[in-house]
Amino acid sequence: MYKINDNFLKLPGSYLFSTIAKKVNTYSAEHPDKTLIRLGIGDVTQPLAPAVTDALHKAVDEMGEADSFHGYAPDLGYSFLRETIAEKDYKSRGCQVSPDEIFVSDGAKSDSGNIQELFDVDNKIAVCDPVYPVYVDSNVMAGRTGEYDPETERWSRVIYMPCTKDNGFVPEFPKEKPDIIYLCFPNNPTGLAVTKDQLQGWVDYANRIGAVIIYDAAYEAYISGQDIPHSIYECSGARSCAIELRSFSKKAGFTGLRLAYTVVPKDMESGGGSLRDMWARRHGTKYNGAPYIVQRAGEAVYSEEGDAQIREQIAYYMENARIIREGLKDAGFEAYGGVDSPYIWMRTPNGMKSWDFFDYLLEHANVVGTPGAGFGPSGEGYFRLTAFGTHENTKAALERIKAL
Amino acid sequence: MYKINDNFLKLPGSYLFSTIAKKVNTYSAEHPDKTLIRLGIGDVTQPLAPAVTDALHKAVDEMGEADSFHGYAPDLGYSFLRETIAEKDYKSRGCQVSPDEIFVSDGAKSDSGNIQELFDVDNKIAVCDPVYPVYVDSNVMAGRTGEYDPETERWSRVIYMPCTKDNGFVPEFPKEKPDIIYLCFPNNPTGLAVTKDQLQGWVDYANRIGAVIIYDAAYEAYISGQDIPHSIYECSGARSCAIELRSFSKKAGFTGLRLAYTVVPKDMESGGGSLRDMWARRHGTKYNGAPYIVQRAGEAVYSEEGDAQIREQIAYYMENARIIREGLKDAGFEAYGGVDSPYIWMRTPNGMKSWDFFDYLLEHANVVGTPGAGFGPSGEGYFRLTAFGTHENTKAALERIKAL
Repeated sequence: MYKINDNFLKLPGSYLFSTIAKKVNTYSAEHPDKTLIRLGIGDVTQPLAPAVTDALHKAVDEMGEADSFHGYAPDLGYSFLRETIAEKDYKSRGCQVSPDEIFVSDGAKSDSGNIQELFDVDNKIAVCDPVYPVYVDSNVMAGRTGEYDPETERWSRVIYMPCTKDNGFVPEFPKEKPDIIYLCFPNNPTGLAVTKDQLQGWVDYANRIGAVIIYDAAYEAYISGQDIPHSIYECSGARSCAIELRSFSKKAGFTGLRLAYTVVPKDMESGGGSLRDMWARRHGTKYNGAPYIVQRAGEAVYSEEGDAQIREQIAYYMENARIIREGLKDAGFEAYGGVDSPYIWMRTPNGMKSWDFFDYLLEHANVVGTPGAGFGPSGEGYFRLTAFGTHENTKAALERIKAL
Repeated sequence: MYKINDNFLKLPGSYLFSTIAKKVNTYSAEHPDKTLIRLGIGDVTQPLAPAVTDALHKAVDEMGEADSFHGYAPDLGYSFLRETIAEKDYKSRGCQVSPDEIFVSDGAKSDSGNIQELFDVDNKIAVCDPVYPVYVDSNVMAGRTGEYDPETERWSRVIYMPCTKDNGFVPEFPKEKPDIIYLCFPNNPTGLAVTKDQLQGWVDYANRIGAVIIYDAAYEAYISGQDIPHSIYECSGARSCAIELRSFSKKAGFTGLRLAYTVVPKDMESGGGSLRDMWARRHGTKYNGAPYIVQRAGEAVYSEEGDAQIREQIAYYMENARIIREGLKDAGFEAYGGVDSPYIWMRTPNGMKSWDFFDYLLEHANVVGTPGAGFGPSGEGYFRLTAFGTHENTKAALERIKAL
């Protein structure tokens, strides 16, 4: 008689964005006359750049001719893409990452969910609080997190590192030593970045205690500050302790196209196993590569034309970020982030609970945001707005919020 | 100090097709004058059908305009595709499968590797021998298979069900009761199919002992026999015991485009958990959907035009299967399969070992096949050829084999 993996049953409620979607759908169904503005889920709205659609059309044509048809992709991804990434994202910033340490995939969500498979089930993870839910939930499914306490909203075997106004939303080294540390900078949901010195501190700490850092740099393209590192490999010693996740979703509007990559340096070895070789084995066994046409689209992002078009898109979104950040401050709210990232992290007014503010904003301003509490207990009293709307909608949303 | 998942280190050697690729690359580098014919890996060679490339172009154009741009896809896949699948692949064959039991993904390899996450680590799996390596390897990584014995090439906690000439390549119920049974029909690698009566026997057996069947029907489109079931849901009682995997890779040449789906019926419940809801949770947490443009391409496969074009492609490959099957027999070999599937399973001559025959064929005929032993101990003495080449290459390969 088969037995299910009952770790799944420990997961409280459903996935944050599914819950939001249900609430929004219910509200829309009951109020068909209302026009909602969605600044909640971090999904882009600008169309794919012309350089990207051109590359897609060209690749589709190749797939339609026998001579240029492409079947299964190489396990790690096509060389043309991995070599471009090594050159443009790493070598140009003085980071040492070789193409065979780069693994092309269908998304940073998949990678951040799957990467924990490389580690023993007894390893203890540390996460920022608030945090992108996938880091914790994927470890729950694997049985690594102990028991959930609905009172504290915490798992018994997870080390939480609060990121609040008091520490400038940058975590402190935890009292208890973790084995695996999830860091995401520029951060989702707080929108704050770390300086190179701060990140170097984390790299040194991880090397000192023998921990792995899973570094999620999905929002790297939004960095504007000069002292903000684009890659963890800008820090010395990172090759022996850090795995880096990157994504084309936010950088180039690929949320619906699906492309990302993960770097696992060859220097990461433990207990007779090379993490790079293990990840290669996982890729070869449980994955079959991103579509050829999408890998060509990814390559186009790095072309001169593509790069210019994508910088324009990012500037567009960052103008929204400015509108939100300044608009909120004008309206008397406390607001953080939105300078090196597309997220603005605001305090809810009058100590209102996050989900109450979600409902309040949905009902009274018809604006959809994301409740901070959905990202962890330290997110309570905060609320996330994203810069991924149109200028028009973003301005309209802020007018509605100011009028509340 | 972090500790790796040392189940990975238990995996012997590297993945079958990677090993073949290395051998072939070495041979090619040493013999640049030789023209190899590849009938090894099951990769298609015909270009995408015009209906598919038309749909891709149209969807790419949509992605290039703000009004028709698509960001994150719904967790389970777009309704337009899931509803089409429910109608065309199931309802039309009298099977009861609803769209919300269909989960669109990037490939049957991913799904067949990931599906084991739903089950307890103590569950015991049964696999056919020979078998598609992913079923076993993904369970090794999860720690479900015990220890590997290089002598017998078997894992201590895996139940092997030999499929040989003696049982017509259809497994018998194992002596020991399994919790999870992997079945793939039409079979990879043997190319043989099961009749509906035979499959009904397995469904009844699974329901009787409380086992789950993971039914891999990736080669369904190649079925020609009237008594061969296209779906396990043609068997009564399958909804309470069977998960079905389907793929667009072989059906429509999507190996480089990546699209598949898995059916998890709502009737599958155990220990307070609904497998359908668990898989939905996994999809929502660790996956972010197949690209919009690829889902539109998948939809086009079911259009009148697409269907006709794809049937032509399949007929093309099945003509190759006939050439191989009959050619081998003419040359005095024993050959099986190739009637309801694109695979031909031949006996190696004179009791030659599979890998020896691989080397022999590579060196003397410059033909690449797949050694049966790579699929499990009962594959020793067999060799797999695939019908996915061109007519020209397939004929040439058979001429070379006949001339040996």
